Amino acid sequence: MASGIDLEALGELGLIDTLRRRAGEPGGAWIRAIGDDAAVLRPRPGTDLIWTVDALVEDVHFRWQTTDARSLGHKALLVNLSDLNAMGAKPLGFLLTLALPGDSEPERVDGFLRGLLAEARSSGCPLVGGDTVSAPIWSLSVSAVGAVPRGRALCRTGARPGDRIMVTGTLGGAALGLELLEAGRATRAEARRYARRHLRPRPPLGAGPLLARAGLATAAVDLSDGLARDLSHVLRESGVGAEIRLESLPLPRGFRGLCGELGLDAESLAVAGGEDYELLFTVPARAPQASVLAKRLGCRLTEVGFVGRGRGLRFSRRGEQVRGEFSSYEHFKTRGKRSEQ
Amino acid sequence: MASGIDLEALGELGLIDTLRRRAGEPGGAWIRAIGDDAAVLRPRPGTDLIWTVDALVEDVHFRWQTTDARSLGHKALLVNLSDLNAMGAKPLGFLLTLALPGDSEPERVDGFLRGLLAEARSSGCPLVGGDTVSAPIWSLSVSAVGAVPRGRALCRTGARPGDRIMVTGTLGGAALGLELLEAGRATRAEARRYARRHLRPRPPLGAGPLLARAGLATAAVDLSDGLARDLSHVLRESGVGAEIRLESLPLPRGFRGLCGELGLDAESLAVAGGEDYELLFTVPARAPQASVLAKRLGCRLTEVGFVGRGRGLRFSRRGEQVRGEFSSYEHFKTRGKRSEQ
Repeated sequence: MASGIDLEALGELGLIDTLRRRAGEPGGAWIRAIGDDAAVLRPRPGTDLIWTVDALVEDVHFRWQTTDARSLGHKALLVNLSDLNAMGAKPLGFLLTLALPGDSEPERVDGFLRGLLAEARSSGCPLVGGDTVSAPIWSLSVSAVGAVPRGRALCRTGARPGDRIMVTGTLGGAALGLELLEAGRATRAEARRYARRHLRPRPPLGAGPLLARAGLATAAVDLSDGLARDLSHVLRESGVGAEIRLESLPLPRGFRGLCGELGLDAESLAVAGGEDYELLFTVPARAPQASVLAKRLGCRLTEVGFVGRGRGLRFSRRGEQVRGEFSSYEHFKTRGKRSEQ
Repeated sequence: MASGIDLEALGELGLIDTLRRRAGEPGGAWIRAIGDDAAVLRPRPGTDLIWTVDALVEDVHFRWQTTDARSLGHKALLVNLSDLNAMGAKPLGFLLTLALPGDSEPERVDGFLRGLLAEARSSGCPLVGGDTVSAPIWSLSVSAVGAVPRGRALCRTGARPGDRIMVTGTLGGAALGLELLEAGRATRAEARRYARRHLRPRPPLGAGPLLARAGLATAAVDLSDGLARDLSHVLRESGVGAEIRLESLPLPRGFRGLCGELGLDAESLAVAGGEDYELLFTVPARAPQASVLAKRLGCRLTEVGFVGRGRGLRFSRRGEQVRGEFSSYEHFKTRGKRSEQ
């Protein structure tokens, strides 16, 4: 099935032809796509456009020992779709910067494109252009554009004291999956399920646009770097503080047990683990309960805390303050490559 | 003056703060920029949006031995502005994917950002977001968006038999500059002028939008990979052929002499050298003469050939056919890293 793409035989122009053939014509709002100097988009009247970029670098964001090429393709697009979701936007299309060695394994190149274009089809976000270059390592940058009704984009700036904090799905599963993969322990069915959360996350991508149309959220962010870090961005941009109730965090079933077996702290993974790509958003105090909102958004939803007047992020456990010492990954930092949150 | 940016001390979040402070608020059509999950653009009614991406990878597109950090910053944005120009679009803003080692020289990081943001200011194309990641080598990907009046985008598809082929500026100067830099001979004033064409190209970025508004061009492309390769893309997309008169190619003053000193073929550099970022476009036979068009576009303009019925690109010299053997760079190709045109 996987025929393989030999870059040294194909050359750059052959690779572009392959991409163009496999991606097909995007149609919809796209007047021109692959084959020109740039893609041409005709926006629908009454929409704002949302525009994001995310990079994945070999041995920084992923390792071939723990990732397969198809999963990498899925994830390269998904991390961008997650940003659009967090802004309340429906995807329109994406550009791909594909930097990789000319002697990359043909099956790997083929698998990557299959994973990427499968995600593109299933999410209705076609490839419309890009740049392909030779490089010593794999380095992918995907830039996606989406649309949201005018003035309805979900931003990080609107959280107000008294707002309640909601998260979709469960937290920590992707981080546990990565730990299992790196320890070579993603073998049992249960462990493989977590590994899959890391390799092929499935956040509720429809929830953001529904939330934007409903006009219910005051602020939103996707949980890519972990709840602690991502919520801190919202608090900073909004000029407010918040408290998270640790006992309210939605953990996957069997999560605590498996964490215990590995000597990992379940709460730390849930708070600082990252890569769950779930949606965190704030709603006014008078908004409907989580269970009511969950039905409207079509996904699991949990209220995990509230916004307050002070600055910074606090944690509590059953009413008692907890000293938060959750660390998450930060690029460039040398001291253990982790920054205190 | 160059204070330096120490990434290991700043960390990713500190770098983002620095970028945000130096870039300033974009204003204009941008509702949200750096600081959120994505940038928010409110398009003007009656416009199409043009969207492009270009990557620069260390030791593939540039070498620190021959490039300074400021020039690299200028060029990272300019290669994208050139794509917008070729589509007839005025720039609106850009996203930056900045992948680089944590221990990069602080002066280099600072210089890069100064060059990039100086180009952003002078071209009215603000930084509105991006992604900053640690990586073993420098790898930059810039994605720019621009606007063109609805239906007026210049594409590669519209060239018709009988059309005349025009190029702005002069050809071959950037390629000669690179040869001089690599040979360590960019020391004399004349040689430094060519080196500058490679390091800080100054194509006529206003010409594309003027051409799009005038509705005169049937097809257009920017000369990034050399006239032979880039014109071939136009011919292929339009389903036509063309003939280029070698004696008509606009060469910089003193170009032939300096090429001769270095044992380089002036015509080959002009036809296949690349990186001049001049504009090539086709106009109908009845369109005004080059000298008249030049005045309207505000730049030097030369008619260099015509579109014909056959397929492929031919070259002539004073009416005689010439066997074209011009080669240009192609990523991934291993046989000398060059493909025959």
